[in-house]
Amino acid sequence: MRLKNVKGAKEKISQSSYVILDPKQHRGKMAQLFENQNPIHIEIGMGKGNFIIENAKRYPHINFIGIEKYDSVLVRAIEKLEGIELSNLKLIRMDATEIEEVFDHEVDTIYLNFSDPWPKTRHSDRRLTSTKFLKRYDAIFVGDPHIVMKTDNMGLFEFSLESFSQYGYVIEEISLDLYKSLKTDNIPTEYELKFHGRGMPIYFCDVRKK
Amino acid sequence: MRLKNVKGAKEKISQSSYVILDPKQHRGKMAQLFENQNPIHIEIGMGKGNFIIENAKRYPHINFIGIEKYDSVLVRAIEKLEGIELSNLKLIRMDATEIEEVFDHEVDTIYLNFSDPWPKTRHSDRRLTSTKFLKRYDAIFVGDPHIVMKTDNMGLFEFSLESFSQYGYVIEEISLDLYKSLKTDNIPTEYELKFHGRGMPIYFCDVRKK
Repeated sequence: MRLKNVKGAKEKISQSSYVILDPKQHRGKMAQLFENQNPIHIEIGMGKGNFIIENAKRYPHINFIGIEKYDSVLVRAIEKLEGIELSNLKLIRMDATEIEEVFDHEVDTIYLNFSDPWPKTRHSDRRLTSTKFLKRYDAIFVGDPHIVMKTDNMGLFEFSLESFSQYGYVIEEISLDLYKSLKTDNIPTEYELKFHGRGMPIYFCDVRKK
Repeated sequence: MRLKNVKGAKEKISQSSYVILDPKQHRGKMAQLFENQNPIHIEIGMGKGNFIIENAKRYPHINFIGIEKYDSVLVRAIEKLEGIELSNLKLIRMDATEIEEVFDHEVDTIYLNFSDPWPKTRHSDRRLTSTKFLKRYDAIFVGDPHIVMKTDNMGLFEFSLESFSQYGYVIEEISLDLYKSLKTDNIPTEYELKFHGRGMPIYFCDVRKK
């Protein structure tokens, strides 16, 4: 994603009631922030937030936490949330490499939407579906690890399917052209709408480790 | 594949030294036909034979057995083999549903190339990657079950990935556009050349159960 420096982003983030400012303090007890025991679904790399905000609206009995690395992107989601009250949505500004410091066996589902493909082989460990990350996720899941992924990047999708499968994940559902073959309800991301609009196929998979 | 009635097909098949006419008599002892203990790779639905013939030429230390249901198609492979001597290639005319009656824990690898997609849900058991067939294959493999698949049919590929994965197969290698991303050597089938020539992506996977 191209990044712009957004004026006042830091201030907006620090003032938003959606943002968990000290996430490491809540490690292992995120449920307290929602004041209920509903399952927690997180999106790593939420971008401008359409996917997680619409999910929070559609599924009030699931708690959603959106994670985004960049202030300048996170602030766009915060702006979308102005005037909206969603008690089942929280946002965190952080780098995914710190995920184990923020969550401890309390996440039900991870969404990975249009993650950075890191196309160079020497950067493959940085892909959010690399073995390195799958190991980190083991420490944050409660129950069967469950990942739902979308991407328009063929190379990243091929890599991810091999990585999931070799790590013990089973493919519960796959689509090689989401808009042609998916049976379940789909909530698009901003990026997805743009690339689907250009006629690019969107790849999808839902994988679970038992 | 469109089928034509080929005059003299039955005669040509019965006279070819490549054809195993009484395969059930050799169940569990196919190695005797090759007079060695090299691994046996089979292609179910070999069509006109380019894939298996070229494999037999390229890999003399592997024994190949091509299986085809239709006389009129098998005869085309036999015609290609006229004047060629390959001691590591045999052909069988049979229906895949009989596979367990012909092989018994002696197959190393199964190739499934451009299999009939049987697109209607009520016919899904007839797909060569359905659980019904994967169970049959268990009885013919020696060592870790190993399947290598190519298809141009997106629906069949999605179905197969879910089926393999849910049956315990792990994806060792996958390509969503064989001619863009495959790293290994590829031997095309007749059908593949035609469809690739029209710009269709060819899907590939190599899966193994441990």
